[in-house]
Amino acid sequence: MRAGVFDSGVGGLSVVRSLLEQGLFDEIIYYGDTARVPYGVKDKNTIIRYSLEAVEFFKNFNIDTLICACNSVSAYAIPELRTKAPFPVFGVIEPGAIAVCNTVANKNAHILILGTRATINSGKYQHLLQECGFANMKGLAPSLFVPMVEEGLLEGPVLEQAMHHYFKDLPQTPDVVILGCTHFPLIKDAIQRYFPKATLIHSGEAIVEHLQNHLDFSEGKKETQLKLFATENPEGLKKVAAAWLGLEQKTLL
Amino acid sequence: MRAGVFDSGVGGLSVVRSLLEQGLFDEIIYYGDTARVPYGVKDKNTIIRYSLEAVEFFKNFNIDTLICACNSVSAYAIPELRTKAPFPVFGVIEPGAIAVCNTVANKNAHILILGTRATINSGKYQHLLQECGFANMKGLAPSLFVPMVEEGLLEGPVLEQAMHHYFKDLPQTPDVVILGCTHFPLIKDAIQRYFPKATLIHSGEAIVEHLQNHLDFSEGKKETQLKLFATENPEGLKKVAAAWLGLEQKTLL
Repeated sequence: MRAGVFDSGVGGLSVVRSLLEQGLFDEIIYYGDTARVPYGVKDKNTIIRYSLEAVEFFKNFNIDTLICACNSVSAYAIPELRTKAPFPVFGVIEPGAIAVCNTVANKNAHILILGTRATINSGKYQHLLQECGFANMKGLAPSLFVPMVEEGLLEGPVLEQAMHHYFKDLPQTPDVVILGCTHFPLIKDAIQRYFPKATLIHSGEAIVEHLQNHLDFSEGKKETQLKLFATENPEGLKKVAAAWLGLEQKTLL
Repeated sequence: MRAGVFDSGVGGLSVVRSLLEQGLFDEIIYYGDTARVPYGVKDKNTIIRYSLEAVEFFKNFNIDTLICACNSVSAYAIPELRTKAPFPVFGVIEPGAIAVCNTVANKNAHILILGTRATINSGKYQHLLQECGFANMKGLAPSLFVPMVEEGLLEGPVLEQAMHHYFKDLPQTPDVVILGCTHFPLIKDAIQRYFPKATLIHSGEAIVEHLQNHLDFSEGKKETQLKLFATENPEGLKKVAAAWLGLEQKTLL
């Protein structure tokens, strides 16, 4: 089986890592729209327009399924993509919400949803969690976390001050924190230190379990071939892939 | 006279403010590529491609001159735009460098150039300052300053920590600091507090003087009509314009 993975930039490689570990696909085609990253500050119509361009790109590759690793795309574009794409389309928000439902028994738990402005404003996590019976949730868009991760500031005083800035006025200490952006798992240790008792949910990991429940992987574990494409600076994408995925750069197309 | 002002986002409105104060033009057409902001992290070819699209846009408006308020555009795209555009094109880097030459007498002064990664990597400021006889200069790309300004963090502990992060390892305290990005004048007070003895140069203000030296404004001061266009969220652009320019939002097109 051949999967397409679509992200606004390099962050979706964290989803690719989980997919490689599970060996679900024979081939993964990764498309990062690095020329127009970040999507999280763009409006709904722009996100949909760019996502439809990604679908056009993937039509060239005869993929069996498309995984949208970007939360902002997952928040706004999935219904439109499902109408237009000739292959099944999966986002990361529904799997993330399902992971909360499966992990957290107490329906009164305080759930903090961290995401881009686009993801939070869409209200999609909030809506799905309400449907699961949760009542205490708060969405928060700590916009500086994305450029901080891209700047390599994964710990230290700048990140500490930024966390304090965003978290200090929360009405309640959360029991659950949803890392609703592909960048946030890279600072999960710092977030866990800030909220030592909270359960952290990584929507990018949740998609793998979701796929296993929705597609037929009866053929067993595969050696996955990975092909990388970027709308800008493909060498940069390959470098991150080599570092994150433990692959040799020269083996990447 | 009718001028076009092109920026990657809303930051170029700081240049518009200076132009309005001087009343140089009968009309200003502002085009902010808010759907693809920021440019400062993109590569040269992408910046040129987007800038040529802006030229195509301005061809519809019969402008007399085009002002590129964005330093990243000024760093890479000016020669290409001058070849393709049917009107004179001005960037902000050359005026900024000239302002340093006119303001700073000591050729041994330590000059710190702050800009986006694209602006600093282009080496354009460095090259022009060398031509003016300066020898001690350092380029620095404090990438977090742009999202911090967009987040409204114009002072306080997050900005203080970020300044410390970027400035603490400078080999020398600068005598001159070039604010080589349209966002940076908004945190100039904080930067001045960090370097209390330094002279701050704002390339966006320098362009006004540069235009006065290169175009014929003999008709005297004008009441300027302003028209705003954005590739995304034009209402957001109008809000910033109303706040920064002291105009009533309803008077803006």
